[in-house]
Amino acid sequence: MSEKPSTRDIEEGLALAPKFDAGGLVTCVATDVATGDVLMVAHMNAEALKRTIETGEAWYFSRSRGALWRKGESSGHTQRVIEMRVDCDQDAIWIKVEQQGPGACHTGRRTCFYRVVPLRQSGAVTLEFRDAEKTFDAADIYRKPD
Amino acid sequence: MSEKPSTRDIEEGLALAPKFDAGGLVTCVATDVATGDVLMVAHMNAEALKRTIETGEAWYFSRSRGALWRKGESSGHTQRVIEMRVDCDQDAIWIKVEQQGPGACHTGRRTCFYRVVPLRQSGAVTLEFRDAEKTFDAADIYRKPD
Repeated sequence: MSEKPSTRDIEEGLALAPKFDAGGLVTCVATDVATGDVLMVAHMNAEALKRTIETGEAWYFSRSRGALWRKGESSGHTQRVIEMRVDCDQDAIWIKVEQQGPGACHTGRRTCFYRVVPLRQSGAVTLEFRDAEKTFDAADIYRKPD
Repeated sequence: MSEKPSTRDIEEGLALAPKFDAGGLVTCVATDVATGDVLMVAHMNAEALKRTIETGEAWYFSRSRGALWRKGESSGHTQRVIEMRVDCDQDAIWIKVEQQGPGACHTGRRTCFYRVVPLRQSGAVTLEFRDAEKTFDAADIYRKPD
């Protein structure tokens, strides 16, 4: 029977002790190792985390499909993980990746974060496209989106 | 009565239509605008998102405290938001911030991601400290952690 690790163990220890949520998931942020841009935010279950650590390729868990998912398994746009970090309370993972192919987003763009939210204003917000060029034709690649 | 926006509206539209989870939250990733490093991953409810947009200072919702939270309200280590983006399905926010003061993490460090997970190995994982220097004394600052 394993004891629940203490807050001190989780925050200052050297054991990986992921704090999975009620759905068995941790949040994972993937950034482009070259530019520092956030490419995507997704989730990993224990198996996705294990496979990512073992293979150095990004695996996620798709909440919409309820399935383990190797990034790029449909598109070929895999992610080679250069560095993985875990946060203080071990409920979030940060991976710095080399994105293979033209992009990470199922909409056909380099990053999922292709719209800016204007700041220091109130009322209705109108987004602005940024880094929103389509770099590949998603319809050609996916039978169903990532 | 507002209609639920279509996937196309959410992904390709210019209206901010955050997809809050069952707890009323979206995930927020804060990166350092100067270095691109991920400083922290936290959550925003509708009010935190609204206040962040209106003020250009980062507001979050603390799940552990069940409370709206202006980053730095205890420590003075506020975050000035330089740019905010929303992702394709609008359930994640990315903010590029100028971190005020010595750090973002309640453990007394610049970033919450101060441990590396070694890759391409199987079995038990031993983390490695990286960017783990304490930049401030958390015990001096917080009555309770962020």
